[in-house]
Amino acid sequence: MPKKNTKWVYSFGGGKATGNAKMKTLLGGKGANLAEMSLLGVPVPSGFTITTDCCTAYFDHKMTFPTGTKRQADAALARVAREMGMKFGDPTNPLLLSCRSGARASMPGMMETVLNIGLCSTTIPGMIKKTNNPRFVYDAYRRLMTMYADVVMEKAEDIEPAEGRGIRVQLEHLMETMKKRKGVTEDTDLSGDDLQKLCTQYQACIKKVLKKPFPDNAHDQLWGAVGAVFKSWNGRRAIIYRRIEGIPDEWGTATNVQAMVFGNMGDSSATGVAFTRNPATGERKFFGEWLPNAQGEDVVAGIRTPNPINEATKTGQNKHMPSLQKMMPRAYRELDAIQKRLERHYGDMQDIEFTIQEGTLYLLQTRVGKRTGTAALNMAMAMLREKMIDEKTAVLRVEPEQLDELLHPIVDPAAEKKTKPLVSGLPAGPGGAVGKIVFTAQDAVREAAKGHSTVLVREETNPEDVEGMRAAQAVLTARGGMTSHAALVARGWGKCCIVGAAAISINLRTRRMVVNGRTFKDGDTLTLNGSRGTVYAGELNLIDATANPNFRRFMKIADKYRKLRVRANADTPDDARAALAFGAEGIGLFRTEHMFYGKGTEKALFLLRKMIMSGNEAERRKALRELFTYVKRDIKGTIAAMKGHPVTIRLLDPPLHEFVPQDASNQKALAKALKISVNDIKKRGEALHETNPMIGHRGVRLGVTYPEITEMQIRAILEAAIELNRAGKKCQPEIMIPVTCEPNEIVDQKTIVARVEKEVLKRTGAKSVNYQVGTMIEIPRACLLADRIADVAEFFSFGTNDLTQMGFGFSRDDIGGFLGEYLDRKILDADPFQTLDQEGLGQLIQTAVAKGRSTRKKLKIGICGEHGGDPASIEFCHRTGFDYVSCSPYRVPIARLAAAHAALR
Amino acid sequence: MPKKNTKWVYSFGGGKATGNAKMKTLLGGKGANLAEMSLLGVPVPSGFTITTDCCTAYFDHKMTFPTGTKRQADAALARVAREMGMKFGDPTNPLLLSCRSGARASMPGMMETVLNIGLCSTTIPGMIKKTNNPRFVYDAYRRLMTMYADVVMEKAEDIEPAEGRGIRVQLEHLMETMKKRKGVTEDTDLSGDDLQKLCTQYQACIKKVLKKPFPDNAHDQLWGAVGAVFKSWNGRRAIIYRRIEGIPDEWGTATNVQAMVFGNMGDSSATGVAFTRNPATGERKFFGEWLPNAQGEDVVAGIRTPNPINEATKTGQNKHMPSLQKMMPRAYRELDAIQKRLERHYGDMQDIEFTIQEGTLYLLQTRVGKRTGTAALNMAMAMLREKMIDEKTAVLRVEPEQLDELLHPIVDPAAEKKTKPLVSGLPAGPGGAVGKIVFTAQDAVREAAKGHSTVLVREETNPEDVEGMRAAQAVLTARGGMTSHAALVARGWGKCCIVGAAAISINLRTRRMVVNGRTFKDGDTLTLNGSRGTVYAGELNLIDATANPNFRRFMKIADKYRKLRVRANADTPDDARAALAFGAEGIGLFRTEHMFYGKGTEKALFLLRKMIMSGNEAERRKALRELFTYVKRDIKGTIAAMKGHPVTIRLLDPPLHEFVPQDASNQKALAKALKISVNDIKKRGEALHETNPMIGHRGVRLGVTYPEITEMQIRAILEAAIELNRAGKKCQPEIMIPVTCEPNEIVDQKTIVARVEKEVLKRTGAKSVNYQVGTMIEIPRACLLADRIADVAEFFSFGTNDLTQMGFGFSRDDIGGFLGEYLDRKILDADPFQTLDQEGLGQLIQTAVAKGRSTRKKLKIGICGEHGGDPASIEFCHRTGFDYVSCSPYRVPIARLAAAHAALR
Repeated sequence: MPKKNTKWVYSFGGGKATGNAKMKTLLGGKGANLAEMSLLGVPVPSGFTITTDCCTAYFDHKMTFPTGTKRQADAALARVAREMGMKFGDPTNPLLLSCRSGARASMPGMMETVLNIGLCSTTIPGMIKKTNNPRFVYDAYRRLMTMYADVVMEKAEDIEPAEGRGIRVQLEHLMETMKKRKGVTEDTDLSGDDLQKLCTQYQACIKKVLKKPFPDNAHDQLWGAVGAVFKSWNGRRAIIYRRIEGIPDEWGTATNVQAMVFGNMGDSSATGVAFTRNPATGERKFFGEWLPNAQGEDVVAGIRTPNPINEATKTGQNKHMPSLQKMMPRAYRELDAIQKRLERHYGDMQDIEFTIQEGTLYLLQTRVGKRTGTAALNMAMAMLREKMIDEKTAVLRVEPEQLDELLHPIVDPAAEKKTKPLVSGLPAGPGGAVGKIVFTAQDAVREAAKGHSTVLVREETNPEDVEGMRAAQAVLTARGGMTSHAALVARGWGKCCIVGAAAISINLRTRRMVVNGRTFKDGDTLTLNGSRGTVYAGELNLIDATANPNFRRFMKIADKYRKLRVRANADTPDDARAALAFGAEGIGLFRTEHMFYGKGTEKALFLLRKMIMSGNEAERRKALRELFTYVKRDIKGTIAAMKGHPVTIRLLDPPLHEFVPQDASNQKALAKALKISVNDIKKRGEALHETNPMIGHRGVRLGVTYPEITEMQIRAILEAAIELNRAGKKCQPEIMIPVTCEPNEIVDQKTIVARVEKEVLKRTGAKSVNYQVGTMIEIPRACLLADRIADVAEFFSFGTNDLTQMGFGFSRDDIGGFLGEYLDRKILDADPFQTLDQEGLGQLIQTAVAKGRSTRKKLKIGICGEHGGDPASIEFCHRTGFDYVSCSPYRVPIARLAAAHAALR
Repeated sequence: MPKKNTKWVYSFGGGKATGNAKMKTLLGGKGANLAEMSLLGVPVPSGFTITTDCCTAYFDHKMTFPTGTKRQADAALARVAREMGMKFGDPTNPLLLSCRSGARASMPGMMETVLNIGLCSTTIPGMIKKTNNPRFVYDAYRRLMTMYADVVMEKAEDIEPAEGRGIRVQLEHLMETMKKRKGVTEDTDLSGDDLQKLCTQYQACIKKVLKKPFPDNAHDQLWGAVGAVFKSWNGRRAIIYRRIEGIPDEWGTATNVQAMVFGNMGDSSATGVAFTRNPATGERKFFGEWLPNAQGEDVVAGIRTPNPINEATKTGQNKHMPSLQKMMPRAYRELDAIQKRLERHYGDMQDIEFTIQEGTLYLLQTRVGKRTGTAALNMAMAMLREKMIDEKTAVLRVEPEQLDELLHPIVDPAAEKKTKPLVSGLPAGPGGAVGKIVFTAQDAVREAAKGHSTVLVREETNPEDVEGMRAAQAVLTARGGMTSHAALVARGWGKCCIVGAAAISINLRTRRMVVNGRTFKDGDTLTLNGSRGTVYAGELNLIDATANPNFRRFMKIADKYRKLRVRANADTPDDARAALAFGAEGIGLFRTEHMFYGKGTEKALFLLRKMIMSGNEAERRKALRELFTYVKRDIKGTIAAMKGHPVTIRLLDPPLHEFVPQDASNQKALAKALKISVNDIKKRGEALHETNPMIGHRGVRLGVTYPEITEMQIRAILEAAIELNRAGKKCQPEIMIPVTCEPNEIVDQKTIVARVEKEVLKRTGAKSVNYQVGTMIEIPRACLLADRIADVAEFFSFGTNDLTQMGFGFSRDDIGGFLGEYLDRKILDADPFQTLDQEGLGQLIQTAVAKGRSTRKKLKIGICGEHGGDPASIEFCHRTGFDYVSCSPYRVPIARLAAAHAALR
């Protein structure tokens, strides 16, 4: 229950405010920053914020506003009236209001807005008299009715109209009919009289379709809008977006009620959106877009392609378009000064919205701007040089996941040179991508499920497309600017995106697009260079991108602050070299079995199969002797490539039947080699089949029952180490026993290690060989017995993939049947294979760490499951006292930065 | 390291002793009781015990005796010499010694014994002079050489001769040759001269075969024998026995060195074995067997069929044989007085060995006698009546597992009345059994592996047969008495056994036996009544045996002391009634899916399959409506049968594809019913296939993705309850959600429960219905989140089968590949599916209990895995604060007793 006398309403405007930028939790980002701008003396239209607490109280009490809300709002309204010199609902000098959502985290376009609130039969005449512009007033009234009927009267009431029968569509149809009747094509060609008639039609249509009249009272409109904004927090789009972004459902949104200012009051009016630096590259140039005689929604929604804000940031694409700097130099100078002040004040790049009403500039919003990974990195390094921020802040300014795009492919410049672009657009999301054309979000989702790469091609995107944008490799739109919906969303995800490629014409019905005379159908392949905005027909080669020198400098600073070491999972000398290049400090997981997968491994795989299909120990030992050469070669090469860093070699892990040949020709070859019939091969293969192989005869269980397999691997490791030592090379091999559930398993395998060591030393004449023996901790019981296991194991490496499988009882191969539903219905917050389940399995891991260190104080502890590259999981590893994380080579920089963040937070 | 001045040797005899009965750990059972008898003034031959600590020190130091052993033994020997008036190794008045094993737990016949130690070229003449019986002396010498060569020179040296080429066989062959040459058939027909010659042949043979002479020095013989007894602790037989009985390997055995007394010194000498009460029935009658002019081994080994000890215990089988009571009345009276004193002193039934040497009685051993479950129960109740013990002791006198035989079948008396017995023998092990004849232990083991029931038929059994006896349903021997090896071992296990059925003649080579003119071959069926000693050809009906009125009285006392409640796992009204009869206080696990297995379920199974194979929710709902009738009928019947006791109904648990029909006819029928092709049926079946079904789409995961399945089951449960209430019947249904890993799963299912409850109440017009909703705890993560789970679950039931699968990562279906090796090589102490892993998983369970009770103080906690019927696991459940255990109906009494033991210990 909220306390009595809770303050639900916070005022701002006129150089004063009851809130400030620190109150984001209560006021939402937009509200807190409006208050802060007021305090800074930046011109903002006066208004007030209804708090997020009010929103949650509203949901908790069957959609009723808590006591005091309206009383406090009335007082705030009176204050707005004083400051703006107009009065809400007043017949002669009416004040109009906007009503906008504003949550703690930015959710662009995911919730609702209602503008022009306060127009009704009592205020319209006064408004006409005041503006002397009936066309403007009826256009505003039409817009209010459209938004209000859609947002407040339909969506907020959970009315689900049939496809294409929504109120918005029906009202727009009336507009189209009117235009046809008048023989015009643009809205702006309709006269004030036309619009007045249209307004009467709108009123009738609303009443007929929604069975309720459009409210003809300013205050009714206001509270209907406030409630609808609150309710839009739980709209379908908002929920999907929160799921993707990991925003908690219980935060709620604030509602900002603010005096309307109009960018569409003629040629001395304008509206725009801008960034204090370039959000795609980080370049230190005031960067933005504007439209004359337009409302803000026109820029953001991408309906008209906007103009560049200044001369310095014009590109080949928009150099012919007029800049605000040229068209309204006074307003531009004022805006430029304000943006500089805001960036300095906030110490970070700002994303601002502004409106110029008849020459007067108003700031409508400022917030920390979204940016690409490249931009984040470049800005952080630039601001550090500018002494705007310190090293720690710079490190924290780049999210680990943002590095992903720096490490992701770009279109090969050599290939681009030789290829003529099909079309160009605005470079809205960085990197390169190749994919098959799809024309709808649904198609993108469906193709992604099949594992296909797609380019989602749309006229423009809207919030309904979010799922499809997520699923596609890249997004390409015919309309919209750098701050359009598509650009904002794609940039947030570091996804390749090109917007405003106006030469594209799409026919959604026939699933065709025509570009400069060439026709493409869905399924055709495109290549996009999102960093340059160029589109190519067909597939171009993609290459790695780590050329940015800032990147290496940034990582060096990050490394200064982290405590965790970062290793890579690598199975070949090539992988090892890549890992080293990405800054890996060792190999945390070398999977012996991976030398039997993929190209060039046919001979080794054949020998492995021969070993597996052997009828007895003698045959098996023979096959193992042949196999030994290959195993030793790969191990030696990988250890050598790591130049003295530790290399953890996991002994053979998968159930043997995984390697049983299923195809006739391989079966035949094997039968011949073993001198048995194909039928016998099949039988031996079937004998190895298991009901639940994941929890079957694998890992150390193989080592116990087939000691000769362990023996061969140990011999390969120790001989490789001795030979490298003799060649003057250091090495630190770590022998890792998988699937351990009981300390005696390690004791058993260590007996073999000791025996083989003795033999190898004797045969080679070496005095000693340096190695450690440790174990995977991936079985729940191993966590529980970690104290006894640490008695015999020199290191632990958590195998959180299997620990998740056994801890949840989730077979990774079989979760398809239910995991989607579990996530959709919020039974689980996240896929536990993506991010470590800290609440549940975290307890097991903490127990294992504490117990392990209780018997072996300096026990080396790492993680080699896929969670080792997940920032949230890395934070957990840091907190739990791990020594290192190990992940795929490409994620090593991400892990390094995540480790630094963990240490700095 | 043992401390300096450790006392390794403890003397006894002559009314004095340095040890006593409480020192079993150090002196072994035999040694401690010999000391105790000495202290009680019971006549025992003097001697000394070399401790178990000495044995473990001997093993720890490469088979050398720790410092001080021989010195202390020499001092003890001097004491024996004083008391017996003879001296070890003395040429004129030589003392002979026996050397016997004696561990903390009785291991009958599993370790070695050497008798007549001290006979050599220097003592034989004196011995002959003293006894004036050269035949006796050479016979003793021959026996010494046979035992010594076998035990000390061959087995203890780990010599493994070829089959049939062991030294014992070769020496016996010399004996047979001598008998043939002399034209006699019995050993006793050979003269002193013959035996003297034979001894010379023995010496030569030993030297030739074992490459060492038989030691001709009394002290060498002694220390050779002591070492061999120690080593026999690690003989193959002993190890197998310990594995079966769960005796730790590290205990070691003591060695008892004792003056020889001879029961074979003529007709005034005798030897025997007796029990203070009947070990098969518990009857309060001194009961035993004896042989005149014989050594003890002759009775125990079953080579000669011994005589009954007194008149009162003669049976139809042995009424013609002479009793000790009649033949040696004075010695019998003395023995009878001693046995009464020993039973009173120890407060429990004693198993004693005695020898009468030329009229003088010696007790060689007393120990708590092994007994059948029936005897244990009857004795406990009798001793309670006699006020020899109190209630708690009486309860603790019966091991829970012993009840098993009381609950196992007996031969139907009606069938027995109509059938003529084939042959009779001594009733050595209780109950009835039906099985196919096998003639060797190996055959019994092999057939058991195939799941066949066998009767192991042997001339007599020896320790090598132990594995086969374990594997067979019953044991039948042609020779031996109630204290023969077969009888002792079988009784210990409560296994049906008949010994001494002399009319049987066995031909091992042809695998045939002839009984009273009828020939049987292996594979033929026999029925045994082990309680009466009668054997029938063919199969007779077996029936349950809980007629013993003592049983109900005993269980009532046990119930007074237990804290845990005991429920049964039951899936049908019949099971429920059986459970109630065995004293179950509720059903802890009713498996919905079991109504689709077995006879009479075809229609329900067909409907289930129809539901599973439905193409969409509408089809599925239709099939569920049909299925509903069957599910409700079974649930209602089971709840009704439990007469108001709680019934826990687990919602559908297994992965659906388990029910997919694999055979053509069922596929066809289903295709017809669903109006689709057989091919579609196959495809839908394949779509349900999983890689690891055990951790796949099952349990609550089905309930979440197919809410209509949960709905149908809840409706069945609630309607059944309401209908029973209307009929005036109480009921406590408990709805149990399986495979929970996350509290939200329960929240999700409880929403369905609440909705269905509302519907059902409305439709039936009932005011309310009484039920609880709880969950299985069988996934490791559920243990870790038990505090939050207890927020939404009203009870926990641990599913320790699945918890073991996931906690160990052991697929129960696939452990065949390695578990045997894990147990053999002691990597694991026990099969964790048989007995709960307290060390590892016990921690998870304790965590779950503590966390669960932290949010719901009175949380009801039970177990319904198979461990719920395992006494060791029940003890853990008691200690951990469970409310109840649930097990199969037949194990309910065992669980009740185990719960009482847990509370009393």
